[in-house]
Amino acid sequence: MELKDFISITDGFPKPGISFKDISPLLADPRAFKEAIHQLAEQTQELAPNIILGPEARGFVVGAPLALELGVGFVMARKASKLPGELVRCDYGLEYGTDSLSVEKALIRPGCRVVIADDLMATGGTAQALVKLVRECGAIPAGVVALVHLTDFDGQREFDPVPFRGLIKFNR
Amino acid sequence: MELKDFISITDGFPKPGISFKDISPLLADPRAFKEAIHQLAEQTQELAPNIILGPEARGFVVGAPLALELGVGFVMARKASKLPGELVRCDYGLEYGTDSLSVEKALIRPGCRVVIADDLMATGGTAQALVKLVRECGAIPAGVVALVHLTDFDGQREFDPVPFRGLIKFNR
Repeated sequence: MELKDFISITDGFPKPGISFKDISPLLADPRAFKEAIHQLAEQTQELAPNIILGPEARGFVVGAPLALELGVGFVMARKASKLPGELVRCDYGLEYGTDSLSVEKALIRPGCRVVIADDLMATGGTAQALVKLVRECGAIPAGVVALVHLTDFDGQREFDPVPFRGLIKFNR
Repeated sequence: MELKDFISITDGFPKPGISFKDISPLLADPRAFKEAIHQLAEQTQELAPNIILGPEARGFVVGAPLALELGVGFVMARKASKLPGELVRCDYGLEYGTDSLSVEKALIRPGCRVVIADDLMATGGTAQALVKLVRECGAIPAGVVALVHLTDFDGQREFDPVPFRGLIKFNR
């Protein structure tokens, strides 16, 4: 099974110049979705995580099944005003201005190994901010993983020394 | 294992008068999360779905693992401007104004059985809008399921004749 065949490409979405990689057909095919999570889990296993951290919203689709497959906990990184209790927040740059993600502090214990999981890695800005957030919690950023990886993005260098694993590779 | 023990309650969040039920501790405990998805899958199996449809964002955390456990496809219902291609949209009421969710039309084929999955059912407004959207696609709303269910919400009556299953019950 070629997982790449289950990613649809829409040029000019969401705006001119962007070639959008849509994981929807993969999610809708139970064999392909299962195989993708299985393969990503194999690569993630080497990073020995205690927790998978997924950013809202598509990080939930990848991160939650990945955590279950690995038998570790899943933690949501959410947009502003969505989570109760004591939070740790990180800001990250958008084209115009900034946005932020928060996690519940009690769920990221000092010393635990956290792997950040998302659907697609294009610039790495969100993941980079979450790496910093994990460190602020006193925990260890053990890796960054993504279902889809644009090959002109050098994740290995971007997150160094935090390891990066991307499953399905595309030229931009 | 008492799954209810893994739901934390915050009174007055996100605003006075609301008692927030947070599934985060359940997700962060791999045994509890696995058991919850397993039990929800048993209840969902009877509804014989071909597709699990989950609304952004916490519907992804429940719906994606549920679909994988059942061996059926997962489809995302997303906020405006997030999905490419031909979409079917539904509007639903908020306290002030309305919001909308969209799905990719090609993924909900006429005649297929769709179960809508979310983390928590409080008023049923989002699910009710998605039931209508599924019918607009010519598909069959085969059920609505939720991890957490507030017992003063009568889902069985609200979605009638579409069956409702809620796993973890709370008084409001």
